[in-house]
Amino acid sequence: MAPVRGFLHPRTATGRSSLIPAPPWHYSGDLLTVEYRTDPARVAELLPAPLEPAPDDPGAVAVIWADWQSCSDSAEELLDPVRSQYKECFVVVRCSFEGRTYSRCVYIWVDKDFALARGLHQGYPKKLGSIHQTRPHPFGRAAPRLAPGGRFGATLAAGDRRLAEAVVTLTGPSETNGFVNAHPMAHHRFLPSIEVDGAPALDELVESGAASFEAGRAWRGDAELRLYDAPTEELAALEVREVIGAYHRQVGVTWAGGRRLA
Amino acid sequence: MAPVRGFLHPRTATGRSSLIPAPPWHYSGDLLTVEYRTDPARVAELLPAPLEPAPDDPGAVAVIWADWQSCSDSAEELLDPVRSQYKECFVVVRCSFEGRTYSRCVYIWVDKDFALARGLHQGYPKKLGSIHQTRPHPFGRAAPRLAPGGRFGATLAAGDRRLAEAVVTLTGPSETNGFVNAHPMAHHRFLPSIEVDGAPALDELVESGAASFEAGRAWRGDAELRLYDAPTEELAALEVREVIGAYHRQVGVTWAGGRRLA
Amino acid sequence: MAPVRGFLHPRTATGRSSLIPAPPWHYSGDLLTVEYRTDPARVAELLPAPLEPAPDDPGAVAVIWADWQSCSDSAEELLDPVRSQYKECFVVVRCSFEGRTYSRCVYIWVDKDFALARGLHQGYPKKLGSIHQTRPHPFGRAAPRLAPGGRFGATLAAGDRRLAEAVVTLTGPSETNGFVNAHPMAHHRFLPSIEVDGAPALDELVESGAASFEAGRAWRGDAELRLYDAPTEELAALEVREVIGAYHRQVGVTWAGGRRLA
Amino acid sequence: MAPVRGFLHPRTATGRSSLIPAPPWHYSGDLLTVEYRTDPARVAELLPAPLEPAPDDPGAVAVIWADWQSCSDSAEELLDPVRSQYKECFVVVRCSFEGRTYSRCVYIWVDKDFALARGLHQGYPKKLGSIHQTRPHPFGRAAPRLAPGGRFGATLAAGDRRLAEAVVTLTGPSETNGFVNAHPMAHHRFLPSIEVDGAPALDELVESGAASFEAGRAWRGDAELRLYDAPTEELAALEVREVIGAYHRQVGVTWAGGRRLA
Repeated sequence: MAPVRGFLHPRTATGRSSLIPAPPWHYSGDLLTVEYRTDPARVAELLPAPLEPAPDDPGAVAVIWADWQSCSDSAEELLDPVRSQYKECFVVVRCSFEGRTYSRCVYIWVDKDFALARGLHQGYPKKLGSIHQTRPHPFGRAAPRLAPGGRFGATLAAGDRRLAEAVVTLTGPSETNGFVNAHPMAHHRFLPSIEVDGAPALDELVESGAASFEAGRAWRGDAELRLYDAPTEELAALEVREVIGAYHRQVGVTWAGGRRLA
Repeated sequence: MAPVRGFLHPRTATGRSSLIPAPPWHYSGDLLTVEYRTDPARVAELLPAPLEPAPDDPGAVAVIWADWQSCSDSAEELLDPVRSQYKECFVVVRCSFEGRTYSRCVYIWVDKDFALARGLHQGYPKKLGSIHQTRPHPFGRAAPRLAPGGRFGATLAAGDRRLAEAVVTLTGPSETNGFVNAHPMAHHRFLPSIEVDGAPALDELVESGAASFEAGRAWRGDAELRLYDAPTEELAALEVREVIGAYHRQVGVTWAGGRRLA
Repeated sequence: MAPVRGFLHPRTATGRSSLIPAPPWHYSGDLLTVEYRTDPARVAELLPAPLEPAPDDPGAVAVIWADWQSCSDSAEELLDPVRSQYKECFVVVRCSFEGRTYSRCVYIWVDKDFALARGLHQGYPKKLGSIHQTRPHPFGRAAPRLAPGGRFGATLAAGDRRLAEAVVTLTGPSETNGFVNAHPMAHHRFLPSIEVDGAPALDELVESGAASFEAGRAWRGDAELRLYDAPTEELAALEVREVIGAYHRQVGVTWAGGRRLA
Repeated sequence: MAPVRGFLHPRTATGRSSLIPAPPWHYSGDLLTVEYRTDPARVAELLPAPLEPAPDDPGAVAVIWADWQSCSDSAEELLDPVRSQYKECFVVVRCSFEGRTYSRCVYIWVDKDFALARGLHQGYPKKLGSIHQTRPHPFGRAAPRLAPGGRFGATLAAGDRRLAEAVVTLTGPSETNGFVNAHPMAHHRFLPSIEVDGAPALDELVESGAASFEAGRAWRGDAELRLYDAPTEELAALEVREVIGAYHRQVGVTWAGGRRLA
């Protein structure tokens, strides 16, 4: 019968309906990062074998808000921005696999279906949420500047409950944008069997990272971070013991696939 | 290291964060169905091998709106209804596999992430959309009754574009709720390789159906159905050549898994 | 020049663009009510002169969730249900004016703009929110029945924060649907001057009530009610001292205008 | 009894619950403007007496998309950005009153309740909509730069129907940001009587404009603009006969009240 085409469902004769186009996927946006330390046991219990805790600072966590535009090579999404713009908040820890340190996203919320679907491919454990972060702007009194003293708020909610909120006050330029989300990502892609008690249909460990990256100056800041509990969320279990630092950076990234680790 | 638990991502030490709980999944809701005939070639091209067109009436299509509450065995979602209520619009055709007739959902839009994730498991090719259907109500002038003359509207939009709208006027009781969505479902579960040009990580044909079913009287009606084109949608390619019939039925369903066909 | 027409803005040559049509407005829906007592001083401070506290039980409060369809005399909204369906949560107290007892809505959240605009006309102090309440359904395990033991959840959020949640368990039929929202409504319609420090452009006390009403059996229940604080909300200041009762009722209502009291 | 406080409803003992704080209101954001000519009779019929058409170019229309952050003098909204960020699409014509030319917003859609409420005060005829416009960004392939060749898309939907879409391609710096929205605004503030067939409770003509304004370089561009009909909208009646020009500008504005004209 018919070949069906398309990177993802729904697959059709043309492939035009696919929820997402094939990579590469391009991103332009602003990252607001808060890094802190939690109980390393809370991180370790989120790392399934064969992953192990990172050897140094194993309780380090990054909570990152991102305000994105994204598109495929065609860039057609940019002219229909409801298909291009989305926001996300994600939580990253580090882990070790075969002696190498990886970053790993343990929780993530986005506000568009195409972003959910890309996460499915990349192994990001995405849910829908409502995500907001203050935008810098060069004019007027209703926005901070990207300069010392600039104050940025960021919030996350899901299921009509607020889950996280941060306030970051920029203090000056920074050599880095943090260290927790600075490694290649090691993610699981997992789907249960359609049969009750069957072995998983998919359970693979994959690695990926940026195929290209450009960025402006990173800014360092002071941060407050509050996490709230919810019946179906465990973000607050990663309690904030000590804030390490906070960062703001404007970036351009391309993602073009990864490779299977296990 | 740690075992992680949970039916789906994000998987944690407790499993509590999983976007969806394990089946069985229970549903209570109202179905508004419009059945029509399109060019059978448009249906056939949506059926990848080894599926074949249904032997009789191969151009038959059902567009179904559903207004649901759903829950797991715990039923806890019912008391936090933002986690329980969702709406969907789905498009079903029939196909044949090894001599048996199956129903197959070729397009579907839902308005909650938990519904998207269940579709991932079941092979429904879900996207997010904005879905509305008139509700019957026993009192007042702002609702039809479930009785002859009752008029129901239904609409579907995605990406800020209207994709479909129907008006159904009930004419009387019906022996059936239609024939297109009346078979077990034959769906593909598909995920590309994380590696560019790699073989799909998952590409399986699965069958599933209701583990239990109860329903009220079905109502038959006359229908108008309009489909609209959009850059990333092909629903309108299934053009309406002839309306077969329309139905309204209140149902209770349980889904408890399926089996792999190929 | 041109006469412009329309019940409300935007007013045009045809009147077709008006955010809302002229009354009468018809409603069909389900009401879930929780009545409780708070500190009467908290109620009294929400009653501007010439209103006075109700003489009996002046600390009584009703929090009411409603799941509505609504339409104008044309009923055309019912066939485009995105223009007809909305949900609301509102908080009612009682007051006294010229020796008569009135109900008064002190806080209310809705999820559609046409509902906001009708509130503007009627004097309901509406904001946007996210409102959910469990729906009864006759089939399946994902809905309570309207019968003893039926359990209904209800939640309210605004600004990505949860503000209220209730659980009501039906115990049996009820002679009433509560007493707090049982009087004509006495509301202020208020708009500041366009000029800084100018006298209000509009500040009038109006009365209105249902022009017609029909309803099914009311059900009584036990209730839990939790209120949460937020930076721009004062609902939680009406703290729950004692739950009086809870009710579920399906109603049909028509609203057709009111009269000015002061 | 109690004095109640607050710039707008709901008014309370503290004023903290008011849907909007008192002006001044500060805005930082990006404006994308398309100016065109329509049939002057379509503009004239939107101008109630005593307004008259502008003496020159009376069929000129501006459709403007704006991506805003806004706050009160406290600026506290900026740290809880769900209370600060909103988008709007508005349609401006010009008119004449007592020999002076004014701008006048005839249609406008916003995506937050606080923006709706400010429009109520200022006389903008606001509805809720879904509004998107491409954002410039300095990095990556998923955003245009503010430079010749930069392409920006913009869309408007309401009621699950797309109403307008534009594509603007920047060609170079501009001395102006257009001429249609360049005058003080002349708006009506209108509310019907609570009594059927009563005289309007409020019907006043007000003038307002920016109390302060700063901006970056304006950019000129070529534009395509498409308008779509809908049952409750008349934007498409302002058909595009000739595109005049298009502009992009980043601005900071403060609004601090106006005055009554009639």
